[in-house]
Order: sequence, then C-alpha cells, then structure tokens
Amino acid sequence: MSAKIVTAAMVAIGDELLSGKTKDKNIAHLADMLTTAGIDLKEVRIVGDDEDAIVAAINELRPRYYYVFTSGGIGPTHDDITAEAVSKAFDLPCEHDQKALELMGAVYEARAIEFTEARKRMARMPRGATHIKNRVSVAPGFTIGNVHVMAGVPSIFQAMLDWLLPTLETGAVIHAKIVDCPYGEGTIGEGLEIIQNEHQDTVIGSYPRFDGENYSTQIVVRSRDEEAIDRAVEAVNSLLVEIKAARSAKG
Amino acid sequence: MSAKIVTAAMVAIGDELLSGKTKDKNIAHLADMLTTAGIDLKEVRIVGDDEDAIVAAINELRPRYYYVFTSGGIGPTHDDITAEAVSKAFDLPCEHDQKALELMGAVYEARAIEFTEARKRMARMPRGATHIKNRVSVAPGFTIGNVHVMAGVPSIFQAMLDWLLPTLETGAVIHAKIVDCPYGEGTIGEGLEIIQNEHQDTVIGSYPRFDGENYSTQIVVRSRDEEAIDRAVEAVNSLLVEIKAARSAKG
Repeated sequence: MSAKIVTAAMVAIGDELLSGKTKDKNIAHLADMLTTAGIDLKEVRIVGDDEDAIVAAINELRPRYYYVFTSGGIGPTHDDITAEAVSKAFDLPCEHDQKALELMGAVYEARAIEFTEARKRMARMPRGATHIKNRVSVAPGFTIGNVHVMAGVPSIFQAMLDWLLPTLETGAVIHAKIVDCPYGEGTIGEGLEIIQNEHQDTVIGSYPRFDGENYSTQIVVRSRDEEAIDRAVEAVNSLLVEIKAARSAKG
Repeated sequence: MSAKIVTAAMVAIGDELLSGKTKDKNIAHLADMLTTAGIDLKEVRIVGDDEDAIVAAINELRPRYYYVFTSGGIGPTHDDITAEAVSKAFDLPCEHDQKALELMGAVYEARAIEFTEARKRMARMPRGATHIKNRVSVAPGFTIGNVHVMAGVPSIFQAMLDWLLPTLETGAVIHAKIVDCPYGEGTIGEGLEIIQNEHQDTVIGSYPRFDGENYSTQIVVRSRDEEAIDRAVEAVNSLLVEIKAARSAKG
C-alpha cells in the first residue's frame, strides 16, 4: 500500500512567545487540524520579531516541506514584520495589495472606522500573493508559493485555517489507537521494543505519565493502515496480560 | 551601558507534539524561567522522534547560541532516542554512564523495583556528559558541551531546570512594563511606531486582543535599562491621552 504523504512545517512568529509573555495556542491547534486532515506536521520553529530569523526559517523550511504555515506578525504595528520578511524570503516586493485595500476600505467605511496608515499596513503582502480569508477579521492572510501566512491572534488564526484547509492537498490520514497501560515505561520498555520491531508497518509511541507517586504509560499505535494498528494493539495487550500474570505469580 | 547578553535555543523533541496528541508545556515554562534569569531565548524548534531531525537541530543551534536546552526522548522505551542523537551530533559514543547506573541501581534496589534493561537505557549518555539532577525522577538528564538534555514529562523537566538554572551563566535581566490599551492596534499603530523610533533603547511590542467584538491591545515595553522603560511608557501614556481627547472632541 503506497499512501500519498503531504508534509508541512510551521513558523510561529513573535517575541512574546519566546519571553514567556504569551503561551502559544496555534501550534497545538495546527498540529491537531493537520493530523485530522492527513497532512504530516514534521517541524515547528518559534522565532522572534526579527527579519533575519524569519527569512532564514522560511527559506530553510519551504524547500524541505510541501507546505509551510506561519502565525503572527501581520497586524498593523511596527513590530508586525512578517509580510516584509516573507517578501524578502521570496525576493519579491512587499506592497499594498489593491484588492485587500478595497475590501478593508469598504468594511471600515461601513463601520465608520478610520482607515489609518497603520490599518493599511495589514494590506501589505508580497506581489502575486493570494488572500486567505476569514470570518473574524477584515484583513486577510496570504499565500505565496507554498507558504501560508496567518494571524497570531488564535481566534483569527483558527478562522483563517478553517478557510484555508479545504483548499489544500492532503495525504492519507494517519490513524491511531491508544492503549492505557498501568505500568511505567521501565516495565514495558523491552517488550514494547520487540513489538515495534515485529510491527514495522506501525509507529508505536509511549508517553509516560507521573502523578507525583506512580508512573503509568499511554501507548499510541499509529499507521495509515488500520489493520496493521489492530495487529500491533493485540500484541501490546498480550504483553500487558503477560506482565500482570508475572506480577501475580511473584506477589 | 553595555550589558552581558546570554542567548539560548530550545529543541522540544517528540512525535506527540507534532501530532497534536500532547500540548507542550515545557516551551512556555522554559521561556518564563530563562527570561526571569536573564537568558534570552531566541529560537525554539519542535522535531519528532527522528534521529536525523534531532541531530540537524542540535548542530544548527549549538554554534549559534550560548546554550541549547532539549526536552523529551530520554525515557526507557525504543522511541526515546535523544541520548543517541545528541551523542551523534557531538560525534561521541553513547554509552551507559557508570555513575548513573550506580545511582539508579541503588534507588531501584531500595524500592524493590527490577532494574530492567529498559530502565538501564536511561543511564545512557554521550561519553563525558555531566548529570542534571532532579528531585522527582531517579534518572538524570545530562549536559554535553553547551547542550542541556532534559526530560519531556513537565514535572521532571521543571525539576531538572530548577537544579540546572543556578549553575548557568546569566546576563542582565530584561525588564518589562505593560500598558493596557483600550484601543486596537489600527488606532495606535502609527503613534506607537513614532514612539519606538524615538526610544531605540527599548523594544516595544504590541499584542492585540479580540474578545469577539472589540479589539484592545497590550503594549509591552522591554529593556535592560529600567529608566529607558519609564521614559517610553510615559510617551505611550501621552499617546493614549491624545487619542482619548481626539475621540471626545469628535464625539
């Protein structure tokens, strides 16, 4: 079975994410949405409001992955430099997009809000970019090449992604089944490694939990092939039964 | 005033962070703690449990920043490959650390827990690494060169960081003051840009909020020089008074 694979990376932009001032919410949301859609998020970078850092991240990631998503830095203030930085990464002029100016001008007029120079900044994008619409904010995000530039405010990021996602290519969805395991990783580690080796058509992850006193583990079996998952889960369940039996025999 | 600057990057490791299964908690915690300590977190990367990806991230970041911190992938199961990957990045053998084996062996014996091969995996580190202790888990993290390798379970990551941080070099702390602004960025953007240009000894960030109906803004003024912050904050407050006066005059 050869399944189509579509990969992605994300660049989350903003000094506030690196200073601890703001806890990012967009990375986990994008990860969730892409996984559900069948796009494999392979790497995330968080960089500050620094042109060189943004350009470097975009240009290292866009040849490597099918899509790149960015969040943040497209508002109306001086520290919103994502449009300029992405234009620079593509070696394109960053200019006021006529269609965006018209759309935004009409909405601001209807709402009797002054269309300030600061607000007009939000219409700037690399020449040739297309809009990413959203139902919350007037100002659009934009797509240039394989890079999708979206807002940092979570409600607007989510609205832009809702609009964007149905327009993207997606691969075969990765399915997952979870086995809750009452033992710590130290107890199941060896058995689990054998199962992983015998079930190469799956990826088995184990995630330790510590409640302050005891360790337990969540075992996640992933694959694009649901039958392969079932076979590996059966093997994991047998392992847990064996461990329980061995413990009772000792006890 | 020339203040000492200590920079850092982080690599958060784990498939679960990229699939949306787990919401990372360590990035924001590290950002908070480093900011408070006077270390500038400049970049974060999230990569999966993939040796090539971990090696690439470590080797791109360690020459660029004073410290690199990692989270995740040092547990006892087959998908915990951080120790091997970091060893490979440094071109060092990854081997069982004798001191770690002794420490762990003693604790497991006292607790009557079997010291399985899987648990012994947690004693593996690059040759020459030093331990990062913690008060929660038996297994230590480790430091090799300027790279600090810590656990992914948040309570253990935090305990390791608590132990590690006092041993690190730190720079002058960046101070911050926050001005809560009742206007959106589109209203204050132009004035704020002028203030930023006139107060180059500060970094002024503005963070939009949207409550579903109205925009407001949090303006954060940062600097290593507290008097510089006060001067910029005064200018911001004057701007807000001007805007309010202009609005009353209109209304």
